[in-house]
Amino acid sequence: MKKIINAVDRVENDMIKGMCKAYPQYVTELPIDNDLCQDHVVVRTEKKVGKVALISGGGSGHEPAHGGYVGKGMLDAAVAGAVYTSPTPEPIYEAIKEIATDKGVLMIVKNYTGDVMNFEMAGEMAEMEGIKVAQVVTNDDVAVDGSLYTVGRRGVAGTIFVHKCAGAMAETGAELEEVKAVAEKVIDNVRTMGVAINPSMVPAAGEPGFVLAEDEMEVGIGIHGEPGVATAKLTEADAIVDQLLDKILADIDYAGSEVAVMINGSGGTPLMELFIVNNRVADVLAEKGIKVYKTYVGNYMTSLEQEGFSISLLKLDDQLKECLDAEADTPAFKE
Amino acid sequence: MKKIINAVDRVENDMIKGMCKAYPQYVTELPIDNDLCQDHVVVRTEKKVGKVALISGGGSGHEPAHGGYVGKGMLDAAVAGAVYTSPTPEPIYEAIKEIATDKGVLMIVKNYTGDVMNFEMAGEMAEMEGIKVAQVVTNDDVAVDGSLYTVGRRGVAGTIFVHKCAGAMAETGAELEEVKAVAEKVIDNVRTMGVAINPSMVPAAGEPGFVLAEDEMEVGIGIHGEPGVATAKLTEADAIVDQLLDKILADIDYAGSEVAVMINGSGGTPLMELFIVNNRVADVLAEKGIKVYKTYVGNYMTSLEQEGFSISLLKLDDQLKECLDAEADTPAFKE
Repeated sequence: MKKIINAVDRVENDMIKGMCKAYPQYVTELPIDNDLCQDHVVVRTEKKVGKVALISGGGSGHEPAHGGYVGKGMLDAAVAGAVYTSPTPEPIYEAIKEIATDKGVLMIVKNYTGDVMNFEMAGEMAEMEGIKVAQVVTNDDVAVDGSLYTVGRRGVAGTIFVHKCAGAMAETGAELEEVKAVAEKVIDNVRTMGVAINPSMVPAAGEPGFVLAEDEMEVGIGIHGEPGVATAKLTEADAIVDQLLDKILADIDYAGSEVAVMINGSGGTPLMELFIVNNRVADVLAEKGIKVYKTYVGNYMTSLEQEGFSISLLKLDDQLKECLDAEADTPAFKE
Repeated sequence: MKKIINAVDRVENDMIKGMCKAYPQYVTELPIDNDLCQDHVVVRTEKKVGKVALISGGGSGHEPAHGGYVGKGMLDAAVAGAVYTSPTPEPIYEAIKEIATDKGVLMIVKNYTGDVMNFEMAGEMAEMEGIKVAQVVTNDDVAVDGSLYTVGRRGVAGTIFVHKCAGAMAETGAELEEVKAVAEKVIDNVRTMGVAINPSMVPAAGEPGFVLAEDEMEVGIGIHGEPGVATAKLTEADAIVDQLLDKILADIDYAGSEVAVMINGSGGTPLMELFIVNNRVADVLAEKGIKVYKTYVGNYMTSLEQEGFSISLLKLDDQLKECLDAEADTPAFKE
């Protein structure tokens, strides 16, 4: 295992500290009783007042998710567990209390059994303190219905669109129910599928999540280094794109609609290859009469050093376009 | 060689097309006679008028450099050669003609023999057409004085600070000499050093630029996949950072000054590791009484899928701070 780290049991701590030191104008670490776990919480340095607050999180290893999206127009807190491991309820609860406003708190949770359970428990604890809490669960991955970690579809890179759109709605001063409704509209209209050509390695495990031959790729990967739905021969980029798009486009009717496109890198993928992927995505969508409103290419929701990518399509209406175009000022996403 | 590409002789073309299709609001490809080479030019979609125009470039494989920095407050054109190969003079000349204003054109060139020669030739061709042209050469790499590709120090990630500051100065309506002076001030005050734990592979070569054992790292790398100054035992992240910072801090006097910090990923490095690096950089600078004004962590000047990073420190004065803080709106850099 070859990594630029100090020790396998320090990666989460060193990462969060390094993030907060890089962006003190955006994020501050919330001290929590951390003796028993590797969970960490970052909150907005300038606390939101009088508007719905947003919280998300999950395991570490998905950087810049989710701490990188804490800031104006997106999240108010991000909770990070150990690598690829759900944070426990206690730090989530502490984070909710820290960011809560009279308008309430929306929890944006990716559909993984541990995440959903722990966020729910934290939300209930907060509600007992009189905090208004609502929750949405993202499940954009069309590759698989049920997996190693999940009942139902997994929440993957499309979650970033939920942060962006719900965050924009919250900034307008909307009520919790309205912010939740926008989040659910995004969830209803976003689909993602991914592929990897090289796996990632959890530092504490020291073993890759799957093994591929030099001419193989893993199709339908999640974001936790787990195997996908099938191992296949590595083909040319355009053919990989076609395969993923076929599955995405078959899932909901995008015909004649406008979409936002996200080409998300898995962490170890050169940007050159993501642009090569987008070249084909743009061509296929144009052929099918699907209009691209905006494209995002980069490392948005990663899996450590995994090499691969996912394609997300978000079907837009005027409200979602407005939400995408609204100001966002966070370390990893500016608009 | 495992890559997400269509064919080794198409990577530059597919990449540029994919970039322009992702960001049509920012960049447009300039058609050039491209039968004989793999050079490509992107220019600002909204042409700059009445202000100094900026051009940069170099080989492909450094994405988002340089096309990703084309937009308001940074570059007006970027010329990309084949992977790790200087673009030829003709497309540079075509780009200069396309973006030229009465105020002139500043060429920002990284110090590599081929780049310097070809930009100079293109600049002379443009001057013969009556275009005012000035040039600066970046040479921020403290690792090596002279290398495989260069006489003198190499230009590496610190070049992005030149784009940002000179671009901001140009937006104020300053004259060519003033914009050039800001670029030179950045060059005088920025230093960089890098390390890699895994090499990159030029698609057309199919071989890595250097080979490392599982417990080795390459210290003092450039950005063209070439070997560094020494192969050393891979140590913990903090010790690597200390080694690089020692060399950077010994080169010019940063004592008591304010700096901008860039932790630049080589392309295949997970963001988690870059934050772990920054955690130590921030601590060491604090210990030494060097104040961090702003930190940038991410993939700014990459080397395909190489795993590694560089640290850049830019010593600031009030003018450079203003230039860093000025508006920038490009695909890869927003302020």
